[in-house]
Amino acid sequence: MKIKEAELLIQSQLTAKRFEHSLRVAATAKELASLYHEDEKKVELAAILHDYAKDFPTDKLKQLLVKGGFPEELLLYNQELWHGPVGSYIIKSEHGITDMDILNGVRFHTTGRAGMSKLELIIYVADYIEPGRQFPGVNEVRKIAQSNLSKAAWLVSSNTIQFLLQKNALVYPDTIHVYNDLTRSLFKDIK
Amino acid sequence: MKIKEAELLIQSQLTAKRFEHSLRVAATAKELASLYHEDEKKVELAAILHDYAKDFPTDKLKQLLVKGGFPEELLLYNQELWHGPVGSYIIKSEHGITDMDILNGVRFHTTGRAGMSKLELIIYVADYIEPGRQFPGVNEVRKIAQSNLSKAAWLVSSNTIQFLLQKNALVYPDTIHVYNDLTRSLFKDIK
Repeated sequence: MKIKEAELLIQSQLTAKRFEHSLRVAATAKELASLYHEDEKKVELAAILHDYAKDFPTDKLKQLLVKGGFPEELLLYNQELWHGPVGSYIIKSEHGITDMDILNGVRFHTTGRAGMSKLELIIYVADYIEPGRQFPGVNEVRKIAQSNLSKAAWLVSSNTIQFLLQKNALVYPDTIHVYNDLTRSLFKDIK
Repeated sequence: MKIKEAELLIQSQLTAKRFEHSLRVAATAKELASLYHEDEKKVELAAILHDYAKDFPTDKLKQLLVKGGFPEELLLYNQELWHGPVGSYIIKSEHGITDMDILNGVRFHTTGRAGMSKLELIIYVADYIEPGRQFPGVNEVRKIAQSNLSKAAWLVSSNTIQFLLQKNALVYPDTIHVYNDLTRSLFKDIK
């Protein structure tokens, strides 16, 4: 799928505001891809498509999550976590995208997971730091993202868990797994 | 096992300071047992014994963790998490304690787990709030423990995760599971 084609497709699926967010994530992800020597076209495509299912109605998300064979445990967590897996399912089944790295980049962009590829880390971080984001701590992640992609992703996971705890929300286990995984690789002497 | 017998046994295993802590946990746990209508003798016994393996050398802890058939994943986390499972193994195999609730109270007192029994919750909370503890937030847990045991345990799990994040330490998945489990039961509308 060409970048332009993906943009038009996403524009047809999302609200204007969310479409603008997708373009900003794509631009940010492309910069990170250049910085960390990842395939810019693949990264840009994954970034544009990452929120494909974000505006799907709840029932449709639920149905496709089950149809796509994703862990049903997800249904016990916030529906904010469903659009990633469902988006990856749709771009594969309806738009013929088969590149596993792009599919995983879309699938895991919200929760993260242990063992993320470089492309996955880029989408995960770009979604957090694109210029429209304004939450506390985002500037620190922006700065670190210029020199250490893993550390930036680690900080995203840590900030996300703290944010969830502060609002008494559930923490999906994959988010702990990415935090632990990156903690292990960054701070080798820490347990 | 009689309470007095357990006290003498624990005194022989622990430093004086840790023995005093065990007695304070037992006194606190007994009060909570009375407040929440749990078997006081069982709770007191579990509380006295909870740190049985705390002063074991690292190699012995590691060896008994494997011998006891506990998840080997624990070896990838802080050794602070090993003495609970090992303690439960020793009081069963060497001292004939077979009551599953007491064994689980000892086993899970550090990590917690989803689906903790009332006795397990009491040990988990008492270990956190015994009068010798002085960390930030402990007074709030002490207060809540007087009226809502689950909420006190939930706050222990949330505080513990935040504490671990602040020092860039790993978070054992069971600690997230107890947090999610209690969040679900306390805040039914939250995901």
